[in-house]
Amino acid sequence: MTTYIKTIGELPKLKDPIFIEGLPGVGNIGRIAVGYLIEQLKTVKFAELFSDHFMPFVLIHQSSAVHVLKNEFFYWKAEKEGQNDIIFFVGDSQSIDPAGHYEIVEEVLNFIEKLGVKQVVTTAGLSVGEESKDEAVIGVVSDPPLKERYSNLGIDFDSGSKIGTIIGASGLFLGLGRYRGMEGICLLGETSNLPEIPDPKTAENVLKILVKMLNLEINLAELEEKIKEMKKFMKKIESVQTKALAQMFSDQMKQKSGEGEELKYIG
Amino acid sequence: MTTYIKTIGELPKLKDPIFIEGLPGVGNIGRIAVGYLIEQLKTVKFAELFSDHFMPFVLIHQSSAVHVLKNEFFYWKAEKEGQNDIIFFVGDSQSIDPAGHYEIVEEVLNFIEKLGVKQVVTTAGLSVGEESKDEAVIGVVSDPPLKERYSNLGIDFDSGSKIGTIIGASGLFLGLGRYRGMEGICLLGETSNLPEIPDPKTAENVLKILVKMLNLEINLAELEEKIKEMKKFMKKIESVQTKALAQMFSDQMKQKSGEGEELKYIG
Amino acid sequence: MTTYIKTIGELPKLKDPIFIEGLPGVGNIGRIAVGYLIEQLKTVKFAELFSDHFMPFVLIHQSSAVHVLKNEFFYWKAEKEGQNDIIFFVGDSQSIDPAGHYEIVEEVLNFIEKLGVKQVVTTAGLSVGEESKDEAVIGVVSDPPLKERYSNLGIDFDSGSKIGTIIGASGLFLGLGRYRGMEGICLLGETSNLPEIPDPKTAENVLKILVKMLNLEINLAELEEKIKEMKKFMKKIESVQTKALAQMFSDQMKQKSGEGEELKYIG
Amino acid sequence: MTTYIKTIGELPKLKDPIFIEGLPGVGNIGRIAVGYLIEQLKTVKFAELFSDHFMPFVLIHQSSAVHVLKNEFFYWKAEKEGQNDIIFFVGDSQSIDPAGHYEIVEEVLNFIEKLGVKQVVTTAGLSVGEESKDEAVIGVVSDPPLKERYSNLGIDFDSGSKIGTIIGASGLFLGLGRYRGMEGICLLGETSNLPEIPDPKTAENVLKILVKMLNLEINLAELEEKIKEMKKFMKKIESVQTKALAQMFSDQMKQKSGEGEELKYIG
Repeated sequence: MTTYIKTIGELPKLKDPIFIEGLPGVGNIGRIAVGYLIEQLKTVKFAELFSDHFMPFVLIHQSSAVHVLKNEFFYWKAEKEGQNDIIFFVGDSQSIDPAGHYEIVEEVLNFIEKLGVKQVVTTAGLSVGEESKDEAVIGVVSDPPLKERYSNLGIDFDSGSKIGTIIGASGLFLGLGRYRGMEGICLLGETSNLPEIPDPKTAENVLKILVKMLNLEINLAELEEKIKEMKKFMKKIESVQTKALAQMFSDQMKQKSGEGEELKYIG
Repeated sequence: MTTYIKTIGELPKLKDPIFIEGLPGVGNIGRIAVGYLIEQLKTVKFAELFSDHFMPFVLIHQSSAVHVLKNEFFYWKAEKEGQNDIIFFVGDSQSIDPAGHYEIVEEVLNFIEKLGVKQVVTTAGLSVGEESKDEAVIGVVSDPPLKERYSNLGIDFDSGSKIGTIIGASGLFLGLGRYRGMEGICLLGETSNLPEIPDPKTAENVLKILVKMLNLEINLAELEEKIKEMKKFMKKIESVQTKALAQMFSDQMKQKSGEGEELKYIG
Repeated sequence: MTTYIKTIGELPKLKDPIFIEGLPGVGNIGRIAVGYLIEQLKTVKFAELFSDHFMPFVLIHQSSAVHVLKNEFFYWKAEKEGQNDIIFFVGDSQSIDPAGHYEIVEEVLNFIEKLGVKQVVTTAGLSVGEESKDEAVIGVVSDPPLKERYSNLGIDFDSGSKIGTIIGASGLFLGLGRYRGMEGICLLGETSNLPEIPDPKTAENVLKILVKMLNLEINLAELEEKIKEMKKFMKKIESVQTKALAQMFSDQMKQKSGEGEELKYIG
Repeated sequence: MTTYIKTIGELPKLKDPIFIEGLPGVGNIGRIAVGYLIEQLKTVKFAELFSDHFMPFVLIHQSSAVHVLKNEFFYWKAEKEGQNDIIFFVGDSQSIDPAGHYEIVEEVLNFIEKLGVKQVVTTAGLSVGEESKDEAVIGVVSDPPLKERYSNLGIDFDSGSKIGTIIGASGLFLGLGRYRGMEGICLLGETSNLPEIPDPKTAENVLKILVKMLNLEINLAELEEKIKEMKKFMKKIESVQTKALAQMFSDQMKQKSGEGEELKYIG
């Protein structure tokens, strides 16, 4: 099956839409920040992405209904001067193997290119250890001149080169999107947490910059509560994912010592 | 070769067939329960599925004939009012790598969609540790309203959310089938055994619910005997599978220390 | 690139050709036995198979010329009554990953089916530990009635079911060929050696049965000498293969501890 | 996405171009030597290769701009009698999995075959341990008669058979190019360094042979300085690559012990 996108109803007609990515990653910064925007704005889900590069399991909801792992596309239409139409891209998982990251990002780029996207904003966390005050949001761009455009938003553009690398979708959307004429910026919220611990404070830092950048009117008061809900769900996926992988691995590799007489290795 | 389905003769013409899956898994619950139904009903094998996501070996039968790993489709036609035509899906193995689970399930969904399937029933075991009395059969559904339809069969619909996840085909048939308009239920028999130990008692619990759900007339007296046969065969596959994987792995990775002078790593 | 077969000149026109496989495996039994037949008969190489499921390296010959890993097809035409045209299939390597075994065998079956093959003979070693006298050649067949046809060649058809499994091409050619109407037999020479030690004595046992089965006139006097040459070459490949895998693995996984300050994991 | 080549502008019209490969590998010998030629000659970049067989991350430049991993094609036109047009092929990375080496090499061979390439020169390092004086450049060829043509360049053609194997692109270009009628030579600079330590001295040895072979006029005075720059960049990629792999691996496999109550393995 590889990777495919299933649209829901008609594709939206959007004017110069900006693409905002918030997939799971370090501290779930991006997932929390972009997830909150999706809830607060009147967004419409219009497509879902499935991939055999996700873990081969379903999650069980409180209602005893299954949930297959997926990524989702939402759109929002500008409501006043100075705003842009937006496509939000969030989801349960990133690829579990290296090649899948490329495949999923290319599939999404094909899709959003047709929808007219020329600007890409990705979000991520940056695990910097205890010295961090969890305040800086570091910016990395597809091309140096872009730093100018985003210069008055409080983004730290001096530390990008210290990072070295961005693993997964947040980096590849910029790196590959660039070859399609898309301008891109990645917002990396510094966190002192371990990568697997969700960090709502850092997510809020990223969220505030997104709000300014996109000229949105968002009430941040409900953030704390929403984060609690999300944390529970994301924790479950992550816990399940690592355990499942460990389980599959040990199942395949372990030797059942008592049953071996009948097997001889033959080539 | 990836994955393909080879039909045997003409495809059957079925009326509203229900799809019943019973692949190997925890305790081989599903394999035993569905295997027994196939033997007791006058079912007809009409297709076989092969995949390079199965282990690359053949089994040797008592007769010295080889057996390539495969999954099999059987059909059964309703004999009286209140019954449905049924497609049974069982086999020797599930995918040995994550992506293969998606590929095989999609291939099967493509196939059964053409045969008119709108209802999917999958079966599995749930390893719950020693506290289990091996009695409950937990139900998980593709959509919450389905719980209503199956409410009078003694299925436990309250514990689904405790499970967290269903790995492999049993979960994906529901999760992906849902997007093709198929309604699905997974029956998970609680077992106190270790996952690799077949559990006939739990299989019987699942079997009894299947019989009621499908309105079948089945003699359960021969179950114990049949289970013995199946256990022997399944044990062999599993033992062979884990050993083979371990062997392949160690063959590839081990260093033959005495032969190394001639090798230098070159890039 | 996956797997492809490159023919050399025109395809041969063969009458009821028998396909004989002798790829590397336990004790290199098959490789030695079939390799000797190819050298002693006036065979003609007519095709080569390349695959990205082989190790990604080239071997260096004594002449400083490179040798890319491949499998090779030779043909031989019957010279007298009671003989068959033959296609020999040998090579440097089998697949290094599970799925590749299926892909390569299917590719070869597609190819030889067009050449009219209806009979398949595969050869392999069977590591049975010290109790072996290195004398028995065990037979496994695609269908039980075939045992009759080969009953007067001294093949042991009673021990097949003890084996449990045949890993790799030798088994899959029978298991998958069966679905194309090909009759198959696998000859497994019992060896007391470790799987990675070539065993010329056992190879000779298999060779003698092949000679009888195919009604050939072969001088076995040069076998010992030929085996020495082959052993050297095969040892080199194997040594290189395991070391290369170990090297690649450790290269990718090792942490270079002194250079890490600039990296932080970002998602 | 697998692997693809993106051309920049019109394809160059070249006369009998020689293909020179210098990808990263042992001691980064080839990368340094060929990189220097590209800088010193007035070469023109005309194509880039992307692959999902590279690590799924982007590097961050000093300027805070992202850099997606790629390989690059440059061309140079002969300026006087006795020179050839040249296609240079360098890059950030080789495949991180075995099959990818084959795929990338075949993709490049398809591309350069159309551009008229009939001669291939690959460069690599050979880690020979402390006994080396870092002076010899060993030659390996696609066919033995080629040694004659290159006999007056100071290449050591006597030690090739001691090497055993060449892993990755440098070997496969010769081994697979041969089947397209391309003549090839691999220049292996002996280094006493560990494989991961760049060795500029050995790179210079290889560079000097390339200059003679291609009849170029190159000022070697700036080599030392250029090497310092390259070393920094390559070190960063390598460090990042090994750490990223280790990180991904440990993320996937680790058990988060405190969060496990809700998971039970289900099949």
